[in-house]
Amino acid sequence: MCLAPELLGSYTDTEAIVVIIDVYRASSSICTAIHNQASALIPVERVDEAQILKSKGYIVAGERDGLILDFADFGNSPYNFSRENVEGKTVVYTTTNGTRTIHAASAYYQTIIASFLNGTAVVQYLKNCSRNVLILCSGWKGRISLEDTVCAGFLAEALLESGLYTTICDSTLVALDLWKEAKAGLREYLTKAAHRNRLKTRNLDDCIDYCLTLNILPEIPVFRNGMLVKLTMPAWTDHTQP
Amino acid sequence: MCLAPELLGSYTDTEAIVVIIDVYRASSSICTAIHNQASALIPVERVDEAQILKSKGYIVAGERDGLILDFADFGNSPYNFSRENVEGKTVVYTTTNGTRTIHAASAYYQTIIASFLNGTAVVQYLKNCSRNVLILCSGWKGRISLEDTVCAGFLAEALLESGLYTTICDSTLVALDLWKEAKAGLREYLTKAAHRNRLKTRNLDDCIDYCLTLNILPEIPVFRNGMLVKLTMPAWTDHTQP
Repeated sequence: MCLAPELLGSYTDTEAIVVIIDVYRASSSICTAIHNQASALIPVERVDEAQILKSKGYIVAGERDGLILDFADFGNSPYNFSRENVEGKTVVYTTTNGTRTIHAASAYYQTIIASFLNGTAVVQYLKNCSRNVLILCSGWKGRISLEDTVCAGFLAEALLESGLYTTICDSTLVALDLWKEAKAGLREYLTKAAHRNRLKTRNLDDCIDYCLTLNILPEIPVFRNGMLVKLTMPAWTDHTQP
Repeated sequence: MCLAPELLGSYTDTEAIVVIIDVYRASSSICTAIHNQASALIPVERVDEAQILKSKGYIVAGERDGLILDFADFGNSPYNFSRENVEGKTVVYTTTNGTRTIHAASAYYQTIIASFLNGTAVVQYLKNCSRNVLILCSGWKGRISLEDTVCAGFLAEALLESGLYTTICDSTLVALDLWKEAKAGLREYLTKAAHRNRLKTRNLDDCIDYCLTLNILPEIPVFRNGMLVKLTMPAWTDHTQP
């Protein structure tokens, strides 16, 4: 487990599957978009890249500092990725932390996206993979975030309880203890998280309850050829296209 | 609070006092050496630097992968920094993680060294400083370490309980929860830590009980002009030499 992309350098097993978490809000939004049958999301880091793709006819979802980009079709809240907005469409999605994390993970075997929303689906998939797993939290601008760490603990607990995985990683031990502390009252526990308070200040916290809902989405987004698409299961039988 | 030196880039308040923690074993050894009246420790990262200083007549403490360097006078255990070995002497000290962390922190106002051993002294000093504090954990080769994070929580709790400090930092929230969980049985709690098990494998774990002893040393090492020396209190009245 890696609690921020800046620490990725010491995780050298590139044969691992990377599981990216960015609870507020990128990974929750991506899971929601794929659930609502977006054909694909194209994550881009820079605003000018999004603008060029917009001029080529793509739908763009994007904010900076909580304001919808003036050329964008909608913002970064998971509520924006409704079936009405995304079904059958390819959506360009610009977010600073989330996109950076996805690209940082591109050296590994496969990159999938997890959130509280699709936790069980992700765990079920990984249990069938027989492959090392690296859970990668996005954090916030180079710092650790509480909600991502707790979500990482939620996944790690299920993987370890399966008996198929073990860990000697202190980050995992940290996340497990936080998840144990948090799980009886997740929403209450996470009211103290810094990023929740940042979102609240900007009136972007309406989606928090939703982001902290467990196991309501069965789909797993996977990063493939520069795009996030729905993982077709069982992917572990597909050796040609990781 | 910063849980690994690789994350230091986002902590831009260079007017802060940095408190470095490396429980196993650098910060515990440094506190012990200063308590045993070493005149100074010179932390060096590379073995060849230590060797050059040895040839100039310095005493050298140093290990690599658990083996005492063949030219060194003794190893990196806190037990090596006995009064007999260090009193009145300047000791060159080579350790990979610890030294790197100390140098990474050199851009800040002041760098002091903390461990479980001198926690109360450090907190007492900081309470009198009226200055932002950055607790910096050394971790292990770019990863987070459980014992450093728990020790950071131990210091943070005391600072926050004083009412003189507040935090909005998720790393601090993480560390506080771990310390709360650990403090009733610190040694037992930390048996799971990865680095404890690394030390055990190399028969270097004889000092663990000692490293996890709270508040037995009153001295605070400070990094000044390339050397670790005893902080003369009250340092907050000394504005000429931070």
